[in-house]
Amino acid sequence: MAAAYELRCRECGKRFDNAPLSICDECFSPLEVICDLEAARGTFTREAIAAGPSSMWRYKSLLPVPEDYKPVTPAGWTPLLPAPHLAERIGAKNLYIKNDAVCMPTLSFKDRVVAVALANAQTFGFDTVGCSSTGNLANAVAAGAARHGLKTYILVPSDLEPAKILNTQVYGATLVRIDGNYDHVNRLCSQIADRYSWGFVNVNLRPYYAEGSKSVGFEIAEQLGWRLPDNVVCPMAGGSLITKIRKAFKELIALGLVEEKEVRFFGAQATGCSPISTAVKNGADHIEPQRPSTIARSLAIGNPADGVYAARAIRQSGGWAEDVSDVEIVSAIQELAETEGIFTETAGGVTTAVTARLYAHGRIHPDDLTVTCITGNGLKTTDALAGVYDQEAAIRPRLTDFEAYISQKNDEPELVVEGANVR
Amino acid sequence: MAAAYELRCRECGKRFDNAPLSICDECFSPLEVICDLEAARGTFTREAIAAGPSSMWRYKSLLPVPEDYKPVTPAGWTPLLPAPHLAERIGAKNLYIKNDAVCMPTLSFKDRVVAVALANAQTFGFDTVGCSSTGNLANAVAAGAARHGLKTYILVPSDLEPAKILNTQVYGATLVRIDGNYDHVNRLCSQIADRYSWGFVNVNLRPYYAEGSKSVGFEIAEQLGWRLPDNVVCPMAGGSLITKIRKAFKELIALGLVEEKEVRFFGAQATGCSPISTAVKNGADHIEPQRPSTIARSLAIGNPADGVYAARAIRQSGGWAEDVSDVEIVSAIQELAETEGIFTETAGGVTTAVTARLYAHGRIHPDDLTVTCITGNGLKTTDALAGVYDQEAAIRPRLTDFEAYISQKNDEPELVVEGANVR
Repeated sequence: MAAAYELRCRECGKRFDNAPLSICDECFSPLEVICDLEAARGTFTREAIAAGPSSMWRYKSLLPVPEDYKPVTPAGWTPLLPAPHLAERIGAKNLYIKNDAVCMPTLSFKDRVVAVALANAQTFGFDTVGCSSTGNLANAVAAGAARHGLKTYILVPSDLEPAKILNTQVYGATLVRIDGNYDHVNRLCSQIADRYSWGFVNVNLRPYYAEGSKSVGFEIAEQLGWRLPDNVVCPMAGGSLITKIRKAFKELIALGLVEEKEVRFFGAQATGCSPISTAVKNGADHIEPQRPSTIARSLAIGNPADGVYAARAIRQSGGWAEDVSDVEIVSAIQELAETEGIFTETAGGVTTAVTARLYAHGRIHPDDLTVTCITGNGLKTTDALAGVYDQEAAIRPRLTDFEAYISQKNDEPELVVEGANVR
Repeated sequence: MAAAYELRCRECGKRFDNAPLSICDECFSPLEVICDLEAARGTFTREAIAAGPSSMWRYKSLLPVPEDYKPVTPAGWTPLLPAPHLAERIGAKNLYIKNDAVCMPTLSFKDRVVAVALANAQTFGFDTVGCSSTGNLANAVAAGAARHGLKTYILVPSDLEPAKILNTQVYGATLVRIDGNYDHVNRLCSQIADRYSWGFVNVNLRPYYAEGSKSVGFEIAEQLGWRLPDNVVCPMAGGSLITKIRKAFKELIALGLVEEKEVRFFGAQATGCSPISTAVKNGADHIEPQRPSTIARSLAIGNPADGVYAARAIRQSGGWAEDVSDVEIVSAIQELAETEGIFTETAGGVTTAVTARLYAHGRIHPDDLTVTCITGNGLKTTDALAGVYDQEAAIRPRLTDFEAYISQKNDEPELVVEGANVR
């Protein structure tokens, strides 16, 4: 390998120089970036990483960006939090949440992949970038392109959440609404990328883009004190994230940074769009496309690009996949917020609800160290909670009115004791 | 000082043991926490701080929490970002943004102050906490109380933004809407705190709460490589933040962690609620309360608790204060997003617009190292941008339709060259 990374066909293994390419010209299978682990051995050490920035760029030498790349996207190094209150509710004993809903410019894990894709868009000389998106990617590309000074076309299904639409337009991106679902949008983007010399982060830049997700895996391992968890629960849309966290763990093992261990991977989908979890449950080695119908719109990909690889990773690891209803998604959003103070979008509701079910069904042992991946912020999908909370009538700003209010709630608060240390 | 911190009256200097108290019983002036700098000298070193967590808790030994306090709120250590594109637009040459819109559980700087307040609520044995809030504080208290397992009453003006209401209710807090503005709400909370044994973070816990803002100042200095900027531009609501960043800088100087320097502080308000900037401009040493009318609702405090101290800090430092219209606020939100990929709430629009004006008016020299504080996320005030962007009609998912769309935009993209390295 001349550079520190190159492209290889996932199926036939054909090697390609770095280029905006995503499909093998021999066998039409997807291409993947392979990083040169031997070359990284000197720089990818615990000490060098600890001395790096508080962002995903601490792992730069195992991400496919030029050696002299100066990062412009402050993404990653998101909190890995113990979740004792949620754990107690769902019968877990050693549960962590990897919270990508914060410490991200646009509040989802997509900032990671876009950061790597845009670095390569610059290298390849594109002045216009774009994507097909279910929302979070749109936000990340629009904001990233603003920082990089690139022109942007973003194509989305026309039914996207209002917050995700605004959170794309505000950065000055051109947002094109498509009358169709994500799979229609994605097909159109492939056609556009064939015709125009644009960098579509999840089409012709996809191999680079996808590698950005490895940073989730690197962070989990480092934040656990350079060890791997027993289980990872991950939402699945296109299916890429779960495969890249697994790849990150394998790279850490190969470099001797963590002890060898087979981590079990568990995939989470909404029942209204569950092509990958269905394949896992049926033991199928192919994905049957579905027509999505779920409030978890960021996961609503009926024909997932990496579905086969996600199902394979889950099976090989000894994991499982589950899917949950829209009602369960809303409940799980509330449960995570009430127990751990984390407000997640619908996709995080999916992951939380699936995590609970995996414990309930005995798929995960209570004592296992399990990491659940929360990938986006609740302020992105506020419409999913519309009507859930009553808007009570306002009261007048008087103590008597407040006392009437709380007595109606049957609350009898402790009174201030005169002379005690309370104002 | 027996403990590492205690309360002192800001005016008469009377000392108090730690307690949920905010007003001096001698002279009725506000109390402030004073940390024992000498006691912290051994632990508050550059090396010890660098070895600490990637959060505000790296500065724990100069925050008023018990020595054995185990932090539960993963707040702070937010990015300090160079803002070259915005700088170019407004005639600055060395502009940084301290971005508290990310890396915060509820996406505003209020998570910092609430983290410290709730640590003390626990120490004082409160099982119920609350606040009066213009929105961001409500979010932070609700989420923090969920993590701490505390009961919560949150009182807000009835016209709060929908996203801020939902982002309070989702954590299971009781949200009480008050028919009045923030100043009415705050007065009611003082009455409630007098009657019930509850911890109101910005009433009887206010001295502890306010100290949390020092972490912004500590972070700015450390992220600049342990030096102080020339100027800091800060939004002002109650006026506390600006005074506490200044206090943090003074503590760093006293401990020898940074070179001595008089940093100029600049305050930012909305013209529709500008009691502090008006006082600064008029050279007045008192604050004339106003009736707020602005889209920057998180800054809509007409009778700011720390207004006098904020105006004094600005004057003493050689700074200035400005206020901007609602139209300028919206433009500045867009400008910051388009140039730096940062989507801020209305308060951030205020700070950005004021920063631009300070450069335009020559109040800040172009070469100065200036830090502008962005304190909350744009997804919290999406209603402020309602109607700003057209919702274009959706197009069909066909290449011909897309080409018609871009030709209507007068865009003529470069075509893919056959045989070139582009898919």
